[in-house]
Amino acid sequence: MIPPRLIFRKDRMMVLDQRLLPDRIEYIAVRDAAGTAKATRDMALRGAPLIGCAAAFGFALEMRRLKPGTSADIERLARRTAGLLKAARPTAVALFYAADRMLDLALAFAAAHPGKLSPAARGKFPALLDKEARLLTAEDEKACRDMGEHGAALLPRNCVIMTHCNAGALATMGIGTAVGVITAAHRKGKIKHAYSCETRPYLQGARLTIWELMREGVPSELITDNMAAHIIKTCGVNAIVVGADRIASNGDTANKIGTYALGVIARYHKIPFYVAAPTPTIDMTAKDGDAIVIEERSCDEVTYVKGARIAPKGVKVRHPAFDVTPASLITGIITEKGVISPVTRANVRKNLGK
Amino acid sequence: MIPPRLIFRKDRMMVLDQRLLPDRIEYIAVRDAAGTAKATRDMALRGAPLIGCAAAFGFALEMRRLKPGTSADIERLARRTAGLLKAARPTAVALFYAADRMLDLALAFAAAHPGKLSPAARGKFPALLDKEARLLTAEDEKACRDMGEHGAALLPRNCVIMTHCNAGALATMGIGTAVGVITAAHRKGKIKHAYSCETRPYLQGARLTIWELMREGVPSELITDNMAAHIIKTCGVNAIVVGADRIASNGDTANKIGTYALGVIARYHKIPFYVAAPTPTIDMTAKDGDAIVIEERSCDEVTYVKGARIAPKGVKVRHPAFDVTPASLITGIITEKGVISPVTRANVRKNLGK
Repeated sequence: MIPPRLIFRKDRMMVLDQRLLPDRIEYIAVRDAAGTAKATRDMALRGAPLIGCAAAFGFALEMRRLKPGTSADIERLARRTAGLLKAARPTAVALFYAADRMLDLALAFAAAHPGKLSPAARGKFPALLDKEARLLTAEDEKACRDMGEHGAALLPRNCVIMTHCNAGALATMGIGTAVGVITAAHRKGKIKHAYSCETRPYLQGARLTIWELMREGVPSELITDNMAAHIIKTCGVNAIVVGADRIASNGDTANKIGTYALGVIARYHKIPFYVAAPTPTIDMTAKDGDAIVIEERSCDEVTYVKGARIAPKGVKVRHPAFDVTPASLITGIITEKGVISPVTRANVRKNLGK
Repeated sequence: MIPPRLIFRKDRMMVLDQRLLPDRIEYIAVRDAAGTAKATRDMALRGAPLIGCAAAFGFALEMRRLKPGTSADIERLARRTAGLLKAARPTAVALFYAADRMLDLALAFAAAHPGKLSPAARGKFPALLDKEARLLTAEDEKACRDMGEHGAALLPRNCVIMTHCNAGALATMGIGTAVGVITAAHRKGKIKHAYSCETRPYLQGARLTIWELMREGVPSELITDNMAAHIIKTCGVNAIVVGADRIASNGDTANKIGTYALGVIARYHKIPFYVAAPTPTIDMTAKDGDAIVIEERSCDEVTYVKGARIAPKGVKVRHPAFDVTPASLITGIITEKGVISPVTRANVRKNLGK
């Protein structure tokens, strides 16, 4: 069993501190939007769908706390809150989706209740936001379940599969996206072996994914990222599945740094490369991968591991946290609505029902 | 300036402890073959050419210490010593080359001095071995210089280059193999920028290569291994150069884990992928890469970084220390004798003058 990632209370949200996993299971109490944004920036809270769910509840908490008295207050405070939440992780479009959905609801409420709010409206407003955040969370949970089914159906019997970073239960409110596909296929007896790439610099694969796979009883091994090509060549890996932080309208996919390399390596070895992500990850406003902003994070995350320095003082370091895998390298994108394959602009649109 | 890797004294060899770099410059005093083998196994001593030089001197030290009294003693002790040294790192053929060269010299000496050794022969034997070890070291130094020249000539002006692991001065008694190519090209003003992959799990790139590049004044940045494909795509990298632990007779190359992935990624991006290694690295007895034994090292080297555990207790881990890049992915092999390109069995043989 994977511990709950978020626990919703009336005046606070308990956030599982993923920096401490797998050693310790501890929660941070978050009471407002600033606390939600901070937990996201600090990486206590991570995983694109989970960040979205947390942002929705963080939005609701903030509005409950601020108690806007007029429709103008709602409008002003809701815009500020959404902006604050979205700035915490510029690459994760699920965060934008969640914040904008809450903002739209707040603005619609303001429009429906112009001027000074009645005591009834004041009570109704936070309850409405709370309900919407819970709905978004339930949608994420169901999307994971559906992706698991669609993805498991794609995999062969005796599948030897590889994944990167953590697109697991810990990244969502459900069974996960990419890891959800693996665990769903495992329950159907289809997984012979799974490899988790450790995912430097933040080691989400070593700390989170392999831990999830162990807890779910999936036969699995941890490897360093640079072993992937060798393991694929020598250990019969016949599928790769990863998550996504943002998918452009043509299918180009931004995900944790290292994903693009796996796409290239999969192509060379002629094995399928799947992306599993719920539709809120698809950014129809992004024409292609070039439109996706790649977050450059602190160099210290590369040069320090668990507080110990691993490189010379004064070293220059790059730390792009994500990369873009072109649609041409992706065999299929698994969403809750089905599988986009081949990955083309038209098929992306079709999957969204647009 | 890179500190000396080995300092030869009459009764001992001072070995730079590379596990402590770049934080501390400390030496281990080695007095015999067992000490040499231990330093190699423990990774205090690393880098295929350097291990070879150390093994040669370790052999000489051992014979001086054992003082064989007869030709039969020499034969028995020399065989045992060579075996002990060779077992320390099964992938590095330079080690086999060095140990066998010392063994051959000892056996030839025994054959020339049958029976009980005269006092003159007893004095001459260790001096002869000592001289041979120093000769081998001088050859390595010159080979590095020559590889630097041949390699630098291959690179374009304003070269943006990437390397993996440490094939630098620290891996040799000279300027290095792959890093020697970079520093030689830098002195000719050809290097715009160099990227060093950190090289998990042992972080030779983060601890050693970037340190060498900084000390040599080469504009450079450290990246995690999984960033390589993204950096190549977005930062104009136009060459990769790596070292080798063993090259089969057809050009298939065993080198530090992660090299094969870079070969695949270079091919996808249509940039040249060079291997720089002295001819003792070429194993003409290995038909191809399948004949090369890949050393599987301790899992703890993956799950612990600087003494801190980074993965769950009980996790299963793979740790192949090397991988094989097929000749088909290698643009050229740079030896002290010139450049093997295209990499074919016939051209390998031609380079060796066979």
